[in-house]
Amino acid sequence: MVRIGILGATGYTALELIKLLLRHPEARIEVVTSRQEGRPHLSAIHPSLTGRLDLHLEDLGPDAVAERCQCAFLCLPHAASAESAKALLARGVRVIDFSADYRLNDAETYRKWYEHEHPDPERLGKTPYGLPELFRSQIPSAPLVANPGCYPTSAILPLAPLLKEGWIEAEDIIVDSKSGVSGAGRTPKLNTLYPECNESISAYSVGKHRHQPEIEQILGRATGKNVQVIFTPHLTPMDRGILTVCYARPTRALTEAQVLGQLREFYAGQPFIRVINHLPATKDTAYTNFVDITARIVRNRVVLISAEDNLIKGASGAAVQNFNLMYGFSETTALL
Amino acid sequence: MVRIGILGATGYTALELIKLLLRHPEARIEVVTSRQEGRPHLSAIHPSLTGRLDLHLEDLGPDAVAERCQCAFLCLPHAASAESAKALLARGVRVIDFSADYRLNDAETYRKWYEHEHPDPERLGKTPYGLPELFRSQIPSAPLVANPGCYPTSAILPLAPLLKEGWIEAEDIIVDSKSGVSGAGRTPKLNTLYPECNESISAYSVGKHRHQPEIEQILGRATGKNVQVIFTPHLTPMDRGILTVCYARPTRALTEAQVLGQLREFYAGQPFIRVINHLPATKDTAYTNFVDITARIVRNRVVLISAEDNLIKGASGAAVQNFNLMYGFSETTALL
Amino acid sequence: MVRIGILGATGYTALELIKLLLRHPEARIEVVTSRQEGRPHLSAIHPSLTGRLDLHLEDLGPDAVAERCQCAFLCLPHAASAESAKALLARGVRVIDFSADYRLNDAETYRKWYEHEHPDPERLGKTPYGLPELFRSQIPSAPLVANPGCYPTSAILPLAPLLKEGWIEAEDIIVDSKSGVSGAGRTPKLNTLYPECNESISAYSVGKHRHQPEIEQILGRATGKNVQVIFTPHLTPMDRGILTVCYARPTRALTEAQVLGQLREFYAGQPFIRVINHLPATKDTAYTNFVDITARIVRNRVVLISAEDNLIKGASGAAVQNFNLMYGFSETTALL
Amino acid sequence: MVRIGILGATGYTALELIKLLLRHPEARIEVVTSRQEGRPHLSAIHPSLTGRLDLHLEDLGPDAVAERCQCAFLCLPHAASAESAKALLARGVRVIDFSADYRLNDAETYRKWYEHEHPDPERLGKTPYGLPELFRSQIPSAPLVANPGCYPTSAILPLAPLLKEGWIEAEDIIVDSKSGVSGAGRTPKLNTLYPECNESISAYSVGKHRHQPEIEQILGRATGKNVQVIFTPHLTPMDRGILTVCYARPTRALTEAQVLGQLREFYAGQPFIRVINHLPATKDTAYTNFVDITARIVRNRVVLISAEDNLIKGASGAAVQNFNLMYGFSETTALL
Repeated sequence: MVRIGILGATGYTALELIKLLLRHPEARIEVVTSRQEGRPHLSAIHPSLTGRLDLHLEDLGPDAVAERCQCAFLCLPHAASAESAKALLARGVRVIDFSADYRLNDAETYRKWYEHEHPDPERLGKTPYGLPELFRSQIPSAPLVANPGCYPTSAILPLAPLLKEGWIEAEDIIVDSKSGVSGAGRTPKLNTLYPECNESISAYSVGKHRHQPEIEQILGRATGKNVQVIFTPHLTPMDRGILTVCYARPTRALTEAQVLGQLREFYAGQPFIRVINHLPATKDTAYTNFVDITARIVRNRVVLISAEDNLIKGASGAAVQNFNLMYGFSETTALL
Repeated sequence: MVRIGILGATGYTALELIKLLLRHPEARIEVVTSRQEGRPHLSAIHPSLTGRLDLHLEDLGPDAVAERCQCAFLCLPHAASAESAKALLARGVRVIDFSADYRLNDAETYRKWYEHEHPDPERLGKTPYGLPELFRSQIPSAPLVANPGCYPTSAILPLAPLLKEGWIEAEDIIVDSKSGVSGAGRTPKLNTLYPECNESISAYSVGKHRHQPEIEQILGRATGKNVQVIFTPHLTPMDRGILTVCYARPTRALTEAQVLGQLREFYAGQPFIRVINHLPATKDTAYTNFVDITARIVRNRVVLISAEDNLIKGASGAAVQNFNLMYGFSETTALL
Repeated sequence: MVRIGILGATGYTALELIKLLLRHPEARIEVVTSRQEGRPHLSAIHPSLTGRLDLHLEDLGPDAVAERCQCAFLCLPHAASAESAKALLARGVRVIDFSADYRLNDAETYRKWYEHEHPDPERLGKTPYGLPELFRSQIPSAPLVANPGCYPTSAILPLAPLLKEGWIEAEDIIVDSKSGVSGAGRTPKLNTLYPECNESISAYSVGKHRHQPEIEQILGRATGKNVQVIFTPHLTPMDRGILTVCYARPTRALTEAQVLGQLREFYAGQPFIRVINHLPATKDTAYTNFVDITARIVRNRVVLISAEDNLIKGASGAAVQNFNLMYGFSETTALL
Repeated sequence: MVRIGILGATGYTALELIKLLLRHPEARIEVVTSRQEGRPHLSAIHPSLTGRLDLHLEDLGPDAVAERCQCAFLCLPHAASAESAKALLARGVRVIDFSADYRLNDAETYRKWYEHEHPDPERLGKTPYGLPELFRSQIPSAPLVANPGCYPTSAILPLAPLLKEGWIEAEDIIVDSKSGVSGAGRTPKLNTLYPECNESISAYSVGKHRHQPEIEQILGRATGKNVQVIFTPHLTPMDRGILTVCYARPTRALTEAQVLGQLREFYAGQPFIRVINHLPATKDTAYTNFVDITARIVRNRVVLISAEDNLIKGASGAAVQNFNLMYGFSETTALL
């Protein structure tokens, strides 16, 4: 039984993580933290957990966390997350970090996109990116895993198998992604108020989203190419789900059958990747850790389409998958 | 051409009002106010108005408003609204007040439910309640009209014709109402964040909602009875619309045909009341000033059902209807 | 390991049931049936099951089912369901029936509300109603269990504890329920087409819904009273969830604390009933087998409010709960 | 006053058209047709029209229509629409055709994409495409106008100004469009059932949608280029709205200011085109005839984004705009 701490437990990814871990036979949530005053009961913040987990939110420092937990899941803002990770790792706690702090290769890219000096630059480029389908071997022994971004997961998985083979051009990729609103977090803001985003779809942060360098660097890490993408995220009127359409230019003549064949071969044996013939809908992956992927050839362009649940495979499910690998449990425990 | 001011123009009712008035051949919006600094262009706050109304939001006192406007629509918080109304009326501006400040009969009920001393108690009980279907004759000459609450409109209209005839008991009425989220306003709050209220329905303020005394007092005013209701509002995952189901105990044997006949007779000639045989859906009234009403008899109880658009007949459409009556325009101008 | 058959596997309750049973360590789905021709793969009908259950939909008679299954879940239309149950029971298969066929007490009420002669009238009134919170002792030994209706579950559970004590009048109860659209089934119809019911709420079958006699008869069975309810169901723009508000007249002076206390005492130890102080939202029970219940006293009327997931506790979760009891597994297996 | 017939009046575009025409001071709807038997009242099919238009749906041939109407709006299936248009034109009725029958240049492309022999091939390539922003001069005198497709409008308008200048490559354009569900029509189908498409986004007909050749041919007509697009439509969980993102390769160095400048100049004076700096949301155009367009440069690619209401500017609003031009009314009548 692994004693778990969840740091920053008031948001949607933490809630989803708690629900998954409550099904995990080898995990026991010992600590949930928040900066909120007054030690509110967890169920006061997340009423859906009433009767399911009897803990209070505490405002704890790294010593207290290290004393009570073996493994910490950090659902903290960027920079704060690396600060916390550093302190916990120094105290022997293994860390799965939901923030972007350890996903990029270098401190300069981090500074440019996150407008912040990285608090722990030595670990950049050395921390495993927690996408087991591409980096499984690095995870079991890692003290720290960078849990992937929701959009990057949906773009990296369909693109990597073709990039690796050199079948598509690495510097001419368009990624058009549509996400449910839970991806925008639980802090009340005008743009995620119900009557603002209901019955509406819009693109945002076009060409400026922080997941663009993440997609590029991780695809580079996985395939050895210098990758460039144009990334357009959208806010879609639904709770959860990401649908990503990638447009790539083939370097040679390709048929749909060849592309699907390569995807199937590449992901053979991966429990959470479903290469399908039909066009995916986010609903078919909702509340699961699956990613559905298919491919089409249109006017000699490769069109790759993926669907996932942004809170599960795009966040908390991936974290549990990494946790399973780090502790030697079956990779699918609590995830099917 | 009437020169119009809209005070407190950043919310949903103000936006809807502006859209209606842009279609009105006899109204010209001269002033839109807000306490926001920097005189933002109206389209920066309401992007849907881009290219439609070239005004800046100004922070103006009553003198400035009175100088430029003949009629003011107040979309202000309660108490602030009465303060403003008082000042504008003193300067000869006619006022249509969206707040609850002038809807109740007396200052004591106001104090109890709004937890505030009324700023202008003399006008309580004397200000017409702007439901022309019940109080049309009072409106044309009124300097000030209290624009009805969204829920009260949906409950008062179906109940009044039966209460007036003494066909139902006045002190045994249940009003179960379901509203879209726009009714909760445009200030970002956790409970109206998209992922909180999407895919969920919940009751709120059960027995404690401020529209309960309004329903009771206005029904009393319209029918001469001492009315008591149990009022249960719900937050429904949709932008707009209110569906209200009223359960009342008949004082005599009643058939559906009799009840529908009474409703039809009572509202004969009213341009915005549609007494229908089928069960209403809020969508059929969306973006219109109509209220759809029907009746059923179930186990010797009268069940009255109404549907309206909470932002139109429940707010801004009613306001334009009152404006038309106050200035002698056709009642339906800009509303069909 | 119990060998399972799911008869009528193309709808939403069957899909939900399959997902739950895939998590059940003691259940193995052997057979899924449908009248559709061509033995389509299950994943062709339910794409979300791709890679999760490798079965074809078969059109099988009772002999074939009995040969391969020990327990059958019937997701069939009424009347067809009783025909099938009768045949399977005769062949020694235990049956959990999702239809209404075995829920009522007598063939005459069935004929009146379902406009059909009951195919197996002898078992009416003798078949346990599968609400373990009220009838647990009857379930373990039962060859056949009538799985409860979605609305009745949400109304019976809050009302039974007060009715049993005689604290509320049995013949003066109003039940106002709001359901998500999945409750209307998966057959394409105009009224459940997305653009018809999205952004709209409406009441339907007012005073004529078949769950009205079910609520009355089962409450009668559980409490010994002659119960009469006025039942108003609504179609709400969301996938799943039922919120039910019951209005009851107390027979004696009651406080909220007393009512909540009685509910807590009555359901002490029940793993899926959560008596809460705050007002429930359907979302907090979505994708779970929980029912959240609270109570308010308003103008001397008892207002009981419950929330559930109509596909889980209102259908497939309850079925698995019954299955667990029938086979001696822990009641919560596959349900937490 | 122009006497109007609406042929095929049971769907969403016809409903929207009726609502717009009810506001038109120079249009009187005389005839609404449908193949449904029994001459149902229009309000039985469209309850939202109760009390607003007292007509019955009739099953009429061209002689009867021609006798009673001067102008017919055809909301009919393809091929049937051209049959009807041909007959009505021969009888002197002017026609605005909502189907795709007269949008393409040639009968061969029509046959290939619509799998049908064109019933009236002589008029192909000669019928004005009813996008006044590009083809205004052809419309006033036309007996027949081909009302544009919803997706094509959203793609052609942002692309045409740049293509015409030769600023982007004509054969390397990606069009990624997201539409609300009303675009799929009002015939009940599984994929547009509420619980299927709610809380889900999916791409469909990738590379195979019939609007792809329409976009290419009309852009070709407007700009003289040989245009090739990759077109990916999506079904989005909302009633109405289309958001289209176009990715195009510049032929020369371009700044955002230049692109926005060209769009503004090209559409100067067009009452329904709003070139905006901020990113558009479909909601800001909902229930209006506006198209909002903006541009970004990302990694040296031009990204054009447009938003419209698929039922208004994408169908019925455009039809009224064309009607206004055909009859010499102000272009914006009934549309602001």
